[in-house]
Amino acid sequence: MFESAELEHDIDKTRFEEEYPRLRTELLNVQFDLIEAKRFPVILVAAGMEGTGVIDTLARANTVLDARHVVTFALDAPTEEESERPHMWRFWRVLPPKGEIGVYVGSWYTEPLTGRILDKSDTAEFEQQLDALNRFEAMLAAEGALILKFWLHLSKDEQKKRLKRFGSSTRTKWRIEESPWGGSKRYKEAKHAAEHMMRVTSTEHAPWLAVNASNQYYRSLTIGHTILDAIRTRLSRPEETAQVTAPVNVPSLDRKTVLTALDLSLNLEKDDYKKQLEKYQERLNELVWSKKFKKRSVVLVFEGNDAAGKGGAIRRVIEFLDPRRYRVNQIAAPTDEELAQPYLWRFWRRIPRRGHVAIYDRSWYGRVLVERVEGFCSEADWRRAYGEINDFEQEMSEAGIIVIKFWLAIDKDEQQQRFKAREETGYKRYKITEEDWRNREKWDEYADAVCDMVDLTSTSAAPWTLVEANDKYHARVKILKTICEQIEEKLK
Amino acid sequence: MFESAELEHDIDKTRFEEEYPRLRTELLNVQFDLIEAKRFPVILVAAGMEGTGVIDTLARANTVLDARHVVTFALDAPTEEESERPHMWRFWRVLPPKGEIGVYVGSWYTEPLTGRILDKSDTAEFEQQLDALNRFEAMLAAEGALILKFWLHLSKDEQKKRLKRFGSSTRTKWRIEESPWGGSKRYKEAKHAAEHMMRVTSTEHAPWLAVNASNQYYRSLTIGHTILDAIRTRLSRPEETAQVTAPVNVPSLDRKTVLTALDLSLNLEKDDYKKQLEKYQERLNELVWSKKFKKRSVVLVFEGNDAAGKGGAIRRVIEFLDPRRYRVNQIAAPTDEELAQPYLWRFWRRIPRRGHVAIYDRSWYGRVLVERVEGFCSEADWRRAYGEINDFEQEMSEAGIIVIKFWLAIDKDEQQQRFKAREETGYKRYKITEEDWRNREKWDEYADAVCDMVDLTSTSAAPWTLVEANDKYHARVKILKTICEQIEEKLK
Repeated sequence: MFESAELEHDIDKTRFEEEYPRLRTELLNVQFDLIEAKRFPVILVAAGMEGTGVIDTLARANTVLDARHVVTFALDAPTEEESERPHMWRFWRVLPPKGEIGVYVGSWYTEPLTGRILDKSDTAEFEQQLDALNRFEAMLAAEGALILKFWLHLSKDEQKKRLKRFGSSTRTKWRIEESPWGGSKRYKEAKHAAEHMMRVTSTEHAPWLAVNASNQYYRSLTIGHTILDAIRTRLSRPEETAQVTAPVNVPSLDRKTVLTALDLSLNLEKDDYKKQLEKYQERLNELVWSKKFKKRSVVLVFEGNDAAGKGGAIRRVIEFLDPRRYRVNQIAAPTDEELAQPYLWRFWRRIPRRGHVAIYDRSWYGRVLVERVEGFCSEADWRRAYGEINDFEQEMSEAGIIVIKFWLAIDKDEQQQRFKAREETGYKRYKITEEDWRNREKWDEYADAVCDMVDLTSTSAAPWTLVEANDKYHARVKILKTICEQIEEKLK
Repeated sequence: MFESAELEHDIDKTRFEEEYPRLRTELLNVQFDLIEAKRFPVILVAAGMEGTGVIDTLARANTVLDARHVVTFALDAPTEEESERPHMWRFWRVLPPKGEIGVYVGSWYTEPLTGRILDKSDTAEFEQQLDALNRFEAMLAAEGALILKFWLHLSKDEQKKRLKRFGSSTRTKWRIEESPWGGSKRYKEAKHAAEHMMRVTSTEHAPWLAVNASNQYYRSLTIGHTILDAIRTRLSRPEETAQVTAPVNVPSLDRKTVLTALDLSLNLEKDDYKKQLEKYQERLNELVWSKKFKKRSVVLVFEGNDAAGKGGAIRRVIEFLDPRRYRVNQIAAPTDEELAQPYLWRFWRRIPRRGHVAIYDRSWYGRVLVERVEGFCSEADWRRAYGEINDFEQEMSEAGIIVIKFWLAIDKDEQQQRFKAREETGYKRYKITEEDWRNREKWDEYADAVCDMVDLTSTSAAPWTLVEANDKYHARVKILKTICEQIEEKLK
């Protein structure tokens, strides 16, 4: 895999000084076009053998490109706020928006690769980590990102020489300040792990390019030209809508679905309701104050038909909770900062810290519900969302977050009654709009979307609970009971 | 000061249950109007004697109001990321955007008040802290925020009773989990400090309201009605432009100014330039890697005439710096999230962590330069900006951030030559636009604005350095030398 990259190249200073200024002008120009177009972000990952000057490459990128539109990220130890959240949170925090360039030295590859080189992880774990990164990059690419990954390579002898040389100058010593892999002592292990990494994670949408780094002129020109060509080519292509190759789901032939299987006549008497509600509210309060909860957090997702009672249920959940411990998020139209990022970005930024509860009144499922039915995104977008959402919830779950999801189901008659009642109430925020009535006309399409959602995203890490919500008392008690039971189960 | 607040009130459950539902409907309706109008944020601060149920009040606010549009903030210990930045950063992080309500229990008052009650600070320090908070709130109010501050009061006997009662129930014990002031043991000190705080920080735009808290019905109805009236009144008033009462600055009568006093003929030979540049680049690199720097950070502000060479100077500053340690920020048009916040918010969010350098290509000074000259903000807005900027830089400075500011000055002829040269270059980002030529016509107005800026914001915490920039070599060396010297001075 490193055959070409171990060939030494012989580009001299004269040729470099002749070509470099022109390359720089062209790079700045194409970056200008990128900024103006604001169509996609560029993600550059650099990694390499110790001593190859990976950080130097980054430094150079920053002085060659317009640094004001470059986000650089280097892997420091995670901060406290980062370590309280899923592993990938720190990378989501620093993704470049559309039009900008993100340069990652010390990227999502650093930890898996270092772990493997130092033999802290075995091949199977390594493979699993790389697989997750492939899915992450596939998502970025599907969201439009242009991803280029450079592996800077050196032969063993060359590496020895360079590590020695760099260490001697104050101007360059930061380039090799740390040698976490042990320098040339572990050359073989590093090469082996890197080869494996590149083989598994070189994909059509995020390829690795191995570059010989012993000749700095060769290295700079090669990387520069690669970036230039990639951005230029991408800018010259019209924006395309991804094609869907997946088979179309067939709705249940006899209309028997997880929704029609619900017994919506379930109900609770007022006295019973009051007693049980209070019981579970108290239990929830105790759970949130328990010692074990300090290392966990909870994400509560509320989805449901319009007027199914999400707001009322959320109010009962928070009624006796310490307001310092929870946050209710309403998912409305994205801001322009959110629109410049992958779809899930606006949810990643709201992931709760340890010891906290985050409540979502509507959620990331908007993509496979309203956006699917109303055609607000392409079919390819909502189809890939199921997998991306599963990955997202899996990552939360692995980080100790308890993810609990509710679909509040009412029938069409009940909805009509509630709409009519709302039209008479004095609460402005309950006002029924034209849109609400319009959505009702698509009742069956929404039902199909809900059934697909439940089938495709009810995982053991984050199962759906369907709530019979024609009777509000029954619904609220079922919700609180489920929350308590699932938290208890996970705190065991 | 607590005369009324020590009167016990006698509102019974019957009256409460009669009035409360109507109040809640009205509050939700007015909140709906607030969200729709998106004209201003509402900031509610709650504080009070221990045992008054301040947090309970917050909890209630969250269940009465539409919690999805309420930001609640409670003072936990600062996180690592917070403690690496100026004291007020954590509050700026959680300011509600326009249309939303922020509820603060444990606010910017908590630390000063607790410090005074426990006698960790003396009256003078306390006074100084409160003074800074007054300026903070004056800024928020000038930016449009509606601020209401509630002090929940109790007599000493009542406090004793309540602390005992709360502690006995699991449902309520979190209300008094901690008693950092020592409960009724320090009643007198708490009352005394609170009185002082309220006297000093009850301003026309951010008044304190003391409420007797012994009767929960009285408390809830009083606070609810106060909030309702305040938001309703404010919404019913048209938006007004603040009047300027300050005297108008008279430009220097003989046109002798800090700018005309510069010797723009200063220059450097190429050889000398290369030698000196390299010297200071190396020194800067060493400074940033020094042990002492780990606890500090640097903010570099670059302002100057169009085409004065800011970009080129910044490129020389970062040329040999470790890219993991700096970030170049370009201040362009604010995003919609930034527009929904006070002017300085978008700069607060970019304050560097310890050990890092943040470089600003244009900065918060836009307000008193381009926005002033082009009339993009009201006169009142840019006039108050001088003081707000001084406070902002003072807070950075107190947190150990070294603030270094450059004005790059060229003369009108030099600018013309550079514009013409740029029109011929191949760099798209240097393209000279109509706007650049238009700005040139306002040369004198910009000069007046620059002189006022230097006079009003050159402080010992953050002095301006004027750079003679007709000769780029001279300018770059002066900038690097100044940066090195000022960092060295501060690290001593």
